[in-house]
Amino acid sequence: MLSKNQIKLITSLQQKKQRNIHRLFFAEGIKVIQELLESKFELEHLFTTQNDFQEVSTDKKVHIDEGDLKKISVLSTPNSCLAVFKIPNEKKIQDSGLILALDAVRDPGNLGTILRLCDWFGINQLICSKDAVDIYNPKVVQATMGSIARVNVNYIDLESLISQTPLPVFGTFMEGDNIYKTDLPQEGIIVLGNEANGISPEIEKLIKQRLTIPRFGPIQKTESLNVATATAVILSEFRRLS
Amino acid sequence: MLSKNQIKLITSLQQKKQRNIHRLFFAEGIKVIQELLESKFELEHLFTTQNDFQEVSTDKKVHIDEGDLKKISVLSTPNSCLAVFKIPNEKKIQDSGLILALDAVRDPGNLGTILRLCDWFGINQLICSKDAVDIYNPKVVQATMGSIARVNVNYIDLESLISQTPLPVFGTFMEGDNIYKTDLPQEGIIVLGNEANGISPEIEKLIKQRLTIPRFGPIQKTESLNVATATAVILSEFRRLS
Repeated sequence: MLSKNQIKLITSLQQKKQRNIHRLFFAEGIKVIQELLESKFELEHLFTTQNDFQEVSTDKKVHIDEGDLKKISVLSTPNSCLAVFKIPNEKKIQDSGLILALDAVRDPGNLGTILRLCDWFGINQLICSKDAVDIYNPKVVQATMGSIARVNVNYIDLESLISQTPLPVFGTFMEGDNIYKTDLPQEGIIVLGNEANGISPEIEKLIKQRLTIPRFGPIQKTESLNVATATAVILSEFRRLS
Repeated sequence: MLSKNQIKLITSLQQKKQRNIHRLFFAEGIKVIQELLESKFELEHLFTTQNDFQEVSTDKKVHIDEGDLKKISVLSTPNSCLAVFKIPNEKKIQDSGLILALDAVRDPGNLGTILRLCDWFGINQLICSKDAVDIYNPKVVQATMGSIARVNVNYIDLESLISQTPLPVFGTFMEGDNIYKTDLPQEGIIVLGNEANGISPEIEKLIKQRLTIPRFGPIQKTESLNVATATAVILSEFRRLS
């Protein structure tokens, strides 16, 4: 049974402001929760309608019914469990190897998918501008499928970072060097831009190498690639023969 | 002003069964509607809250208010217009060049994104198994961003097609030939599978070449790539030096 205060707290965590005040976020579904439990994330409470998660101590596990789960879930078809975790402190940025940087990516599904791509392609460091969607947004947490546990994410002033880094900085644009014909190093920062506006002018002027994914379909007709599918193509190309 | 019958008809088109009875579908938003108008799609009616679409004849254009638009829209924030188009008859399958085939892809956003990728990478023919999500589902139409006007889509018995085609057939699996080290032709059928279950066993046994996108992240930890991002990587790799 959930108290009114518990329901109020958990639903408030849908908002970034409340997550930052309480330093808590939540995840839903066995798979994602399992991955977070196995990793660095510290469990606050697990709410479940089943007799599962034997490894979780009884003082942290709360049995609830489906009606209660519905009250705290953001899913249209709630799973069987929801877990509240502590938001860890940001770790230091790893400033070597390949780093992905997102300039104002706003869609939670896109950020989740991109995090999953980082995990697949062995990118350990994701950097987001401060106006990008929050990684602990429930929709992002769901879309990451657990990758949130394995990729280091930092929110910083992207302009300041890029202007000071000794690493080569690549940006993806509608026009630039053909990504298939460019020598791509195994160290550097790859910048992708906002869904509607691309990379902001302040960041753009700091970018030394402009890359583009060539278009094979009819000229001038196709909308640009979605930022998550563009990320897939670019990470694949950076990694393919590494 | 919309009549009750118009509202009933348009909202019924959210269902595949009703779309097939009426042979109608709808699209929302200026960009998508514009692209459909410029292409082969025959307009039934355009409903708009603005004084736009001057090129549409007055007998097909209906001015409505925002309250009416809200009644027929599926968007949480309705745009300014919604258009009902006739569903065209399926064209003959183009059985040459690169063809993408989807086995039971169920998520509308994935199908829309994949159609957009086909458009970008110059894949003119998309084949879907009969149990895949309908291309005229409103969420698919929105996600295609107009690509629906430029890629030929057929729903067929995939098993029968693959067992009879003279083209080479490639399937994407968690294990197979490394896609980066395989000679990929510019003609063939590339099969991608369902979000949860991959390619079905009936189709799998007909596939001659198994391809895989190597994983660079921690072994056994990363969930498989999402079907849309896997499609992005695979189409990029087939096209990169063509």
